[in-house]
Amino acid sequence: MKTSTRRNFLKKIAITAASAVAVPGLVKASENLGTAEAESAEAFPGPGGLIVPKGNGLQISGTFLDEISHDIPHQNWGEKEWDADFRYMKAVGIDTVILIRSGYRKFITYPSPHLLGQGCYMPSVDLVDMYLRLAQKYGMKFYFGLYDSGRYWDTGDMSSEVEHNKYVIDEVWRMYGEKYRSFGGWYLSGEISRSTKGAIGAFRAMGNQCKAVSGGLPTFISPWIDGKKAVMASGSQLTKEQAVSVEQHEKEWSEIFDGIHDVVDACAFQDGHIDYDELDAFFSVNKKMADKYGMQCWTNAESFDRDMPIKFLPIKFDKLRMKLEAAKRAGYDKAITFEFSHFMSPQSAYLQAGHLYDRYKEYFNIR
Amino acid sequence: MKTSTRRNFLKKIAITAASAVAVPGLVKASENLGTAEAESAEAFPGPGGLIVPKGNGLQISGTFLDEISHDIPHQNWGEKEWDADFRYMKAVGIDTVILIRSGYRKFITYPSPHLLGQGCYMPSVDLVDMYLRLAQKYGMKFYFGLYDSGRYWDTGDMSSEVEHNKYVIDEVWRMYGEKYRSFGGWYLSGEISRSTKGAIGAFRAMGNQCKAVSGGLPTFISPWIDGKKAVMASGSQLTKEQAVSVEQHEKEWSEIFDGIHDVVDACAFQDGHIDYDELDAFFSVNKKMADKYGMQCWTNAESFDRDMPIKFLPIKFDKLRMKLEAAKRAGYDKAITFEFSHFMSPQSAYLQAGHLYDRYKEYFNIR
Amino acid sequence: MKTSTRRNFLKKIAITAASAVAVPGLVKASENLGTAEAESAEAFPGPGGLIVPKGNGLQISGTFLDEISHDIPHQNWGEKEWDADFRYMKAVGIDTVILIRSGYRKFITYPSPHLLGQGCYMPSVDLVDMYLRLAQKYGMKFYFGLYDSGRYWDTGDMSSEVEHNKYVIDEVWRMYGEKYRSFGGWYLSGEISRSTKGAIGAFRAMGNQCKAVSGGLPTFISPWIDGKKAVMASGSQLTKEQAVSVEQHEKEWSEIFDGIHDVVDACAFQDGHIDYDELDAFFSVNKKMADKYGMQCWTNAESFDRDMPIKFLPIKFDKLRMKLEAAKRAGYDKAITFEFSHFMSPQSAYLQAGHLYDRYKEYFNIR
Repeated sequence: MKTSTRRNFLKKIAITAASAVAVPGLVKASENLGTAEAESAEAFPGPGGLIVPKGNGLQISGTFLDEISHDIPHQNWGEKEWDADFRYMKAVGIDTVILIRSGYRKFITYPSPHLLGQGCYMPSVDLVDMYLRLAQKYGMKFYFGLYDSGRYWDTGDMSSEVEHNKYVIDEVWRMYGEKYRSFGGWYLSGEISRSTKGAIGAFRAMGNQCKAVSGGLPTFISPWIDGKKAVMASGSQLTKEQAVSVEQHEKEWSEIFDGIHDVVDACAFQDGHIDYDELDAFFSVNKKMADKYGMQCWTNAESFDRDMPIKFLPIKFDKLRMKLEAAKRAGYDKAITFEFSHFMSPQSAYLQAGHLYDRYKEYFNIR
Repeated sequence: MKTSTRRNFLKKIAITAASAVAVPGLVKASENLGTAEAESAEAFPGPGGLIVPKGNGLQISGTFLDEISHDIPHQNWGEKEWDADFRYMKAVGIDTVILIRSGYRKFITYPSPHLLGQGCYMPSVDLVDMYLRLAQKYGMKFYFGLYDSGRYWDTGDMSSEVEHNKYVIDEVWRMYGEKYRSFGGWYLSGEISRSTKGAIGAFRAMGNQCKAVSGGLPTFISPWIDGKKAVMASGSQLTKEQAVSVEQHEKEWSEIFDGIHDVVDACAFQDGHIDYDELDAFFSVNKKMADKYGMQCWTNAESFDRDMPIKFLPIKFDKLRMKLEAAKRAGYDKAITFEFSHFMSPQSAYLQAGHLYDRYKEYFNIR
Repeated sequence: MKTSTRRNFLKKIAITAASAVAVPGLVKASENLGTAEAESAEAFPGPGGLIVPKGNGLQISGTFLDEISHDIPHQNWGEKEWDADFRYMKAVGIDTVILIRSGYRKFITYPSPHLLGQGCYMPSVDLVDMYLRLAQKYGMKFYFGLYDSGRYWDTGDMSSEVEHNKYVIDEVWRMYGEKYRSFGGWYLSGEISRSTKGAIGAFRAMGNQCKAVSGGLPTFISPWIDGKKAVMASGSQLTKEQAVSVEQHEKEWSEIFDGIHDVVDACAFQDGHIDYDELDAFFSVNKKMADKYGMQCWTNAESFDRDMPIKFLPIKFDKLRMKLEAAKRAGYDKAITFEFSHFMSPQSAYLQAGHLYDRYKEYFNIR
């Protein structure tokens, strides 16, 4: 079989796959090698290279910074390592870094007068200050993630979060917002799903205050879709039976968007709780809702693998690719990831991450 | 204590251990330092070196390639890393590589017209083509692992596997078998245990077809022994109560071997589900059955550790050594491993693997 | 905000935090940035550096050697790697190495005539000999950890441990004790908690024998506190409901100390089963009991993280720091860790460990 024959063969496959759209119960052809891809098949590399079109996904331009960590073990990096990591991020087009949360229960990221007064532990490094400096150095925007008292996880009630963050938002803006031009926005860190009690009121209150103190800086949320993989990280299950339907998801989130759209600028649903052949269905609904309420539609492209018994290591590249391609097809505005430093960084303690970085650069033609 | 004294001491220990064979309820002396070992004790290295005879196990000459992975996180290697890995394999005597499965549910390893038409996802790289090229480059034989639809795992019924693989076997032979002389055989990837319904019929059908299209290339299976460690990878348990007895194992597998021996050339039982002091009992029965039915008796020497809460990281060298020594004692024909690239490779993301590689080379006197 | 302003601000925070002591239900100020710290705040580094006083914890001077491992995957190191690791330990002030256990069920660390006779497996390397030589080379003391038959874990009864160790203690002293001046003591490896049946008698018997054969070399134990994180490593839970109170802990352990203090020289409670804001309460009671019974009060500062779904990876530096600071505040005599080679070593397979090593050196001003 010569290479040219092989190319024709691949084109034929692409067309076969495209026709799969008519078969009931199967994924849409867009999941496979669709018509557009078939047309550019001639450009595919020969043996050993990629057999899908390159750069066909939404490129990641933002990442969470996973401090304080909830369920991902710490890497124990100092400023030297963080500086190098920002450089690695920049090299692949990341212009936005988002502190996942400024504190979780008693562990905090900066010497907060309010939270120390509440019994939180003094951190040895002021991470907020460090991240803001590094963001400034590398020309990025830093989003501050609000404090998470843990009470919401225990009780399902967000009122404690609103109460604490009243102080946190004020003091953080005073301590850092006026000092660093890299302070670019706020992340309302409550990771809610569809049925969280009082979420609308809580997001309204916190979003309002963030904007008020900061002259209207942008805010966003990153909830999860209550799909089949929405299970506890500490449990041994990988999937559950009762997943939300697309219709139910649209109904419930339309209500939430309706309630928050004037104080929340973007919604970045986590993309890892649904199956790969459900991406298009959920993503198109998300985009439709965001458009309707004038919000930006982001994707939180998880770069860790939810399908493995070790919770969690870096994702297989093709899974990340498929999610970014679905985001592009749906016309999403921005892709961020949870998160670069453990799961995509060449200096991650998980060496699979560095190889993911290489595969990612290859696919997006980044040198 | 001088070194010579120490050697005599070790010889004495060996003899003591050998006599342990008479103590009821204890492992056979062959598990410890038996008579043969005692005789060669003089050759043991001094302090710091090995105190067991070197090279006394069956050397591994084959490895699975764990793509598509079921429960081991991906390393995200490109062709450069795979090429290096084949070189590392070759250096320790591996002449056979076995694709663990060509697809698992919707993830596949090559652009299969049949499977893409069924809604499977287009892979970004043609791994089958790459592995065949690398096998050819390094003078190895490549075994193709059949497609696993996942239905068998969900329902216990293998009919769906037979149905899909009808197409897969044909198209794979057409796409690659005629092109690469490294295409050396077939791995019937259904990981059954003793009581799988319809396994004999399924293996007969698939084995028959593999041989028919390929001019009789060899086929093998790699089932598990339903021992105390046969538990779910995603669960938190390490062992279970109801393990199979040697007698029951022999009875049930004799029936299976009787039904498949004319179309399956070898059986490589996974060696990790039984305890270390059960190895000899099960291995000798396996060899007896294989001999009776004219099949080759291989061992699938698992190079990951089933005894640890993290599922799974590389195995402790002595555990691997004991299993390979048991395989040699039982007169097995070949040892393969699941699998080299995560658990034994110097470039594995699990750095314990590279040290296992060093210990392994030391033991087998490989430079 | 200029740096000097920032420093004043931090001092103000410190004072605020110190006043938190009066608020009911909150942690003691000593957990945060107390008065003493506020006074030295002027010495804190500028942006990017530590914002807590350096070297304010008890420095680790001992580590367990985790062979035979119970639940931490093996690194497959040879003598070359162990030699390097002892050098890394020495560089941060470790003068004591403790074999966690000389055997666990059938896996053993040295060619024990007694245990081989009981059906244990012959190890490929005499680890006890190697560790003693390396300890001697680096001027450290080696503590020998007794054999653990596993029966205690299965039945809660320690009589089997006493029985086996009768032989083990004798033969080990004969094989190594008389040969190596680095043989510095004994670790009674039974990891009991408060209600272990027959623990006092067992510890008395074993402690007595250890001292008798070795001319009174020191002995110690390292039990756990039955706190909220005292859960099974193989399970998926991270915490439990029924944790022991400080009062109950004091009552039960006073009885145990009363029974063993003449044959056990030190007690190193594991520090990872209680919460960070419970450290002072438990530590002060431990010190009081140790003082009362004339025992040394050590801490077993766990360097792995009990709060994460992966069991176990290296701990976040600040958590380790807080535990060592609590030990110093309580006036503890010595800090050992479980354990250096996986969780703090620059050559650990877990790369987070090397960064923990760097953070640790930074904090203790070790170059």
